[in-house]
Amino acid sequence: MRYQRPKGTADILPGDSARWDYVENLARQVFHKYDYRGIRTPMFESYDIFARSAGDTSDVVTKEMYDFQDKGDRHIALRPEGTAGVVRAFNENKLYGPEYQKPYKVYYMGPMFRYERPQSGRQREFHQIGVEAFGSDNPATDVEVIAMALQLFKKLGLKNLRVAVNTLGDQKSRDDYRTALINYLKPHYDELSEDSQERLEKNPLRVLDSKDPRDKQFVADAPSILDYLTPEAHDRFEEVKKMLDVLDIDYVIDPDMVRGLDYYNHTIFEVMVQAKSLGNGYTTICGGGRYSGLVAQLGGPEISGVGFGIGEERLLLLLQDEGIKLPTSDDLDIYVVGIGHETNIESLQLVEAAREAGLSADRDYLERKPKAQFRTADRLNAKVVLTIGKQELAEGNVHLKVMATGKEVSVKLNDLLDNFADVYAKHIEG
Amino acid sequence: MRYQRPKGTADILPGDSARWDYVENLARQVFHKYDYRGIRTPMFESYDIFARSAGDTSDVVTKEMYDFQDKGDRHIALRPEGTAGVVRAFNENKLYGPEYQKPYKVYYMGPMFRYERPQSGRQREFHQIGVEAFGSDNPATDVEVIAMALQLFKKLGLKNLRVAVNTLGDQKSRDDYRTALINYLKPHYDELSEDSQERLEKNPLRVLDSKDPRDKQFVADAPSILDYLTPEAHDRFEEVKKMLDVLDIDYVIDPDMVRGLDYYNHTIFEVMVQAKSLGNGYTTICGGGRYSGLVAQLGGPEISGVGFGIGEERLLLLLQDEGIKLPTSDDLDIYVVGIGHETNIESLQLVEAAREAGLSADRDYLERKPKAQFRTADRLNAKVVLTIGKQELAEGNVHLKVMATGKEVSVKLNDLLDNFADVYAKHIEG
Repeated sequence: MRYQRPKGTADILPGDSARWDYVENLARQVFHKYDYRGIRTPMFESYDIFARSAGDTSDVVTKEMYDFQDKGDRHIALRPEGTAGVVRAFNENKLYGPEYQKPYKVYYMGPMFRYERPQSGRQREFHQIGVEAFGSDNPATDVEVIAMALQLFKKLGLKNLRVAVNTLGDQKSRDDYRTALINYLKPHYDELSEDSQERLEKNPLRVLDSKDPRDKQFVADAPSILDYLTPEAHDRFEEVKKMLDVLDIDYVIDPDMVRGLDYYNHTIFEVMVQAKSLGNGYTTICGGGRYSGLVAQLGGPEISGVGFGIGEERLLLLLQDEGIKLPTSDDLDIYVVGIGHETNIESLQLVEAAREAGLSADRDYLERKPKAQFRTADRLNAKVVLTIGKQELAEGNVHLKVMATGKEVSVKLNDLLDNFADVYAKHIEG
Repeated sequence: MRYQRPKGTADILPGDSARWDYVENLARQVFHKYDYRGIRTPMFESYDIFARSAGDTSDVVTKEMYDFQDKGDRHIALRPEGTAGVVRAFNENKLYGPEYQKPYKVYYMGPMFRYERPQSGRQREFHQIGVEAFGSDNPATDVEVIAMALQLFKKLGLKNLRVAVNTLGDQKSRDDYRTALINYLKPHYDELSEDSQERLEKNPLRVLDSKDPRDKQFVADAPSILDYLTPEAHDRFEEVKKMLDVLDIDYVIDPDMVRGLDYYNHTIFEVMVQAKSLGNGYTTICGGGRYSGLVAQLGGPEISGVGFGIGEERLLLLLQDEGIKLPTSDDLDIYVVGIGHETNIESLQLVEAAREAGLSADRDYLERKPKAQFRTADRLNAKVVLTIGKQELAEGNVHLKVMATGKEVSVKLNDLLDNFADVYAKHIEG
């Protein structure tokens, strides 16, 4: 019987996996420069944690959570995103304690899960890279997080990056804006989409997010959050903008940008890229923002956070579409061509000696004809091909060919086995 | 409300996570030298895949699988181990095709799941690193896999490593041995444990694995698989031993070592370490072996495989217990002490300039007193501390202190912002 991977999942195969490793490794390097450290939380949590953090009106909770009852009849969910689990870990491990540096800065990466309808084109298992900084209200922390995302994307080779920022203000700003928005939308209630009708009282900001043309017509003339900011929220946003300016970060202000979740406040942002492969439009590759209340909602102290999330599938697809070749070197240093069964052990010794010397090495294991073996050496881009056959074996020699220069020499088998690194270095350089 | 991580899971926190990253990164490097490439398969698969690959008598299936019904009423299991998913991916993506090099060599790492009773001390979510090579019957492939595991452990700093090997022979060897074992154990049926009584006819080799003292008394005098090998299986095992000898690998033959699963054949092995922290006994840190039939059982061609698995939790615990300090450098290059709110923007510019220059940098965000900030710089092991206060700001200067030498100089703020790397290099070296 043939078995298939579950609907909405993907295998990341050799070749492609090197690109994933490269992106994740680069992300770690960039985040470390900003003094962020890795955290790993479980693939699943109590359903309540995600339900509580997402709020009842969120699509994630109502439609898309990958949840189930475990054998102990616990309501469990595979994590739909990274923040809630990190906040749970932050609280449970008391990482807000005085012995820890503030802000407490962490990053995560790995699989996330949503029970999507597969026809949506979105995967049930996907991957995210994200960061969170807890315990700093300084706008410099918001800007640092934006700068960090930009540095990662730049180092990946992406050009034409742009940051869109907005503020949701503080609680009073949001409350005032909410009222204004409801007052503006209510007269158009019958013309709105069903989803937006439902959201109007519960979460009117989400209407601005709607992609339904029935809703979109009202967005352009809707009141702007920027007109409802308290003086403090206004000043804070000015500081963020000034800091973006001094760091020469190219940004636009997008007052229609919102977040569906109640705990976002002040700065929210997206990083976009103008991609040739996407018809020169801007596409979002990173979304983030500041939140308060979430840490407390999940049982911790009243501490704010700021962070972002990056969808890895989307990012890797974009890099590919843009023709950006990541420097993942899978080239081989050594390929050993062994001719005849009698060279099996010496071939093993040769590749092992190479690997002990810190080189990458492969060989034929299937007693194939020399021609097929040389073809493999070619395909693997081997820098040096070592050939050993009956005659070489009898004479205690190995035939060494440097592929880049075509140089060919005969070297002593025992010299290679005793001191592979030196012999290799001598011939590859000489 | 306080939320807790699910039973049997763990958070890997900053500090500890760097050790995990180091081990996994080193594993990738070692595997690449052997021309193994990464593969990532989903966290969950159809239950059938694991049930089919593990066989009905296995504890994994009967007791320990982390399985559930998804919302589409599919029987899904979080992966209990890595091999079955990799084999499924190998088949589904037709990686046995002529366009791919043989053996097809892959490695994987990541979370695995078992629905353990938490009192067992084992986790519901744990981590494994493993490799598989498909499509080579050459005993050199078996030995390469063993050598690769050893190289990883040596590079991690483990000493007193030992390999235990055994062979389960080919099908005829196994059948003959099975009969001999049943004949030997049957007269003692009533004295065996309940588990072993049940296994006696279905899978008598598992009785040798039993930790129950009622069973153990019969193991010593049980017939040995080595006496039931066909000539071909015997010769193959001799070749494996000879190859281990020429590579100077320290090994013992353990004829009582078995595998519960039917598809193992020929070489099976464990890597053990004699750890001071474990009272000088040998403990197993890696298990592996050769199998045939599994690829076909999961819908692929009749191709053999050989591989191993390493438990990451156990490995990291051992490294810690042995006092092996992994070279995970979290030390910071730059810490910026900013005194007073008016230095907030310049502090941001300074850390950003450092990070752009490829250095790691952090700062105070909370307007703490200088003393507290210097303490943080100390705790973070910052190589260089930059201080900027009201006076420095007015003069356009930054105070730079190299912590290792105590050297202190005043540098121009603009010089640092324009060319951080050079100024840093000049002072840290000079």
